[in-house]
Order: sequence, then C-alpha cells, then structure tokens
Amino acid sequence: MPFFPASLENLIDKFASLPGIGRKSAQRLAFHVLSLPEGEGESFANAILEARKNVCCCKICQNLTEGEICSVCASTKRDKSIVCVVSEPRDVLSIERSHEYNGVYHVLHGVLSPISHVGPDDIRISELIRRVAADDSEIREIIMATNPDTEGEATAMYISRLLKPFDVKVTRLAYGIPVGSNLEFADDATLLRALEGRIEM
Amino acid sequence: MPFFPASLENLIDKFASLPGIGRKSAQRLAFHVLSLPEGEGESFANAILEARKNVCCCKICQNLTEGEICSVCASTKRDKSIVCVVSEPRDVLSIERSHEYNGVYHVLHGVLSPISHVGPDDIRISELIRRVAADDSEIREIIMATNPDTEGEATAMYISRLLKPFDVKVTRLAYGIPVGSNLEFADDATLLRALEGRIEM
Repeated sequence: MPFFPASLENLIDKFASLPGIGRKSAQRLAFHVLSLPEGEGESFANAILEARKNVCCCKICQNLTEGEICSVCASTKRDKSIVCVVSEPRDVLSIERSHEYNGVYHVLHGVLSPISHVGPDDIRISELIRRVAADDSEIREIIMATNPDTEGEATAMYISRLLKPFDVKVTRLAYGIPVGSNLEFADDATLLRALEGRIEM
Repeated sequence: MPFFPASLENLIDKFASLPGIGRKSAQRLAFHVLSLPEGEGESFANAILEARKNVCCCKICQNLTEGEICSVCASTKRDKSIVCVVSEPRDVLSIERSHEYNGVYHVLHGVLSPISHVGPDDIRISELIRRVAADDSEIREIIMATNPDTEGEATAMYISRLLKPFDVKVTRLAYGIPVGSNLEFADDATLLRALEGRIEM
C-alpha cells in the first residue's frame, strides 16, 4: 500500500530508479528535496531539464559537450595525431587527471557485450573508423583505454582488428601492479601481466 | 577546473548536494539521468516539481499530504484519542509498519537542537499544544515516539512538561533489547534501560 501522497511516492520511485539508490535512500532524498528552500527544488528540476537539453555529443570525439565540438577537440594545444579510445565520458576525466596525456579522445559510449545485446552498431565504433579513414586524418596512434575486464578487452581487440588496414599504430594501456599497492594483495592475473610486461631498469 | 559541460557540472553539483551522495556518485547519477530515454529525464524533473507543488502538511497532524487533511486523520477507523508524536514524516511509516497502532499522529518536523539553532518555535510544538487545548479535543493520551537519542529525549521531555497542565496521559515508547538481537552486543545504556523497564512474566 503506498503510504505517502501520490506525488511524493512518484518522486521516491524516480530516485529509487537511479543506479545504486535503494528504497530507503530514495525516501531520504525525496524528503530532502521536499524540504529545500523555495526555489532550490525548482532549480534542481531545471538542472535536469537544462542538462538534458544542452548536453550532446562532440561531432569529432563523441564526448559530452554543449557546443558542436568539445573543448579538447577545439583546443589548438592538443596533439591531434594521438587518439585515446575510452568507453565512457567519465573515463576521459580519469585520464585528464593524470595531467600527462596531451592527445585527443574517442568515447565509445559503451563496450561490446553479447550478454546485454550490445553489438558493434550500438556503440560509436564506426565514428572512430571514419575519423581514421578520413582523407585529412592526421592520426598516427590509437591508444586503447577500455577497462581491463572481459568486455573492455574484447572491445579493444575488435577495434584493433578493424584498424589493421589503416596506417596507424594501435597500443594498449600497460597492465601491472598499481602504484602504492602491495604485492601480497595483487591478484594472479595482474601479477602475470606485470611479469609479462616487465621493463629494463 | 570544471571539465564537463556547464549544465552537466551544474546537474552533478545538484546531485552532490543531496545527503549521502558524494562527488563520484553524483557524477554517476548525472550520467544516468542524461542517458535516460526521451521523456524519462523530463518526467524525473516533473516529479520533483509536482511533489514540491502538491505536497503540503496536514492541517491536523502536520504529516505530509496532498489534500488539506491526511488519510490517517481523515479515517473514521482511527482512534482520535491517542496521538503518537514523531519527529519526521518517515517515522510515521515506521510505526504504521507495525500494523498495531490505531491512533493518530503528530509530526514535529525536527527535534530541539541548540547546537543547530533549532528552538521550540522552529518545530511544530505549538500546533500540538493547540490540538490538546482545543475545546473539542478528544485526546486522552500522547505517546512520545521521538528517537531515543539526546535531542529526541530532550524534545520529548520539553513537550511532556508543556502538556502537564492538560488532562492527558503522556507516555514514552519502551526502551529495551531489540527483538532478535543478542545480549552480548547490547550496549550498556540499552541494557540498563531494559533492566529498569523489566516486566513481570
């Protein structure tokens, strides 16, 4: 039996539909939104509407942006010859945080996943191929930076095979022990990859 | 440096301002809302606006409702002579879940808290006193059901003193060992209260 007023129940349902938010948290969030001062609840709703309306994908790299082209692609300081391929927009942020990468990106918006019925046409692979195949392409290297799990690996493998006919180097982020971690707690697969990828000191 | 488009940053800020939602979770929620199918993001925003517009406080018990009077106060099956005083609307749900209580409620919308500058005029105490003092009042018993913490106790104590001049019985929920728990893990204060409140078998 729904106990709260209908529109409050509806708001709780909406919050509960978000990832990682259970029924109790959703109630808490809905009560919080109701208790916000005049105008603030409305500006929350507006933020959703504005973001949904304004945010679209960059025509070049498919990252989220408000204009036609994102700030990274528009920058003249970035090296357009290196493209880092990531699965989600938030991964761009992770790589930007290293303050080391100066190339551009390509956001796939997903990974190949037969179980979830995600095929090559459901993510932005053809856009990447088109970028590489363009007559005025300056791309020399593609860095695969999908997550190091089964689906991420398979996606990287699939794309690297599609890129074979083109004159570009395809590389992969290095696997190994995370900096600051402990050998004792490293899993077998990571240790194996770290051994395989060892470099001379 | 904000890295995402402005309206997306704004949406992330809004989510991050909710209780219990950190920056990373807020990003995840904002990305989720952006990726919702056409119409669903908008209906989320509408749910907020609708709830903010429609939900108000019951004129009698101050619980959240969409009409003038909530379903509990409007019901002819509820015993209007017993009033259970709780601090938040969600506490009403907790007590309703016991399927045992048949009286009505009074929601304070907070507890007295000198540290957070919440005084008697900031919560709905005067509304309760007015209910008890009304000429047509049928109230015989007030059950204090604020949380068993310092502020909840102080609030219950304060209200019970205000109710002294009136001809009503003021009671408090029983303290003791939670059903299904283990004596080994019960804290000292709870055990002390359980001993003090022991009843004959």
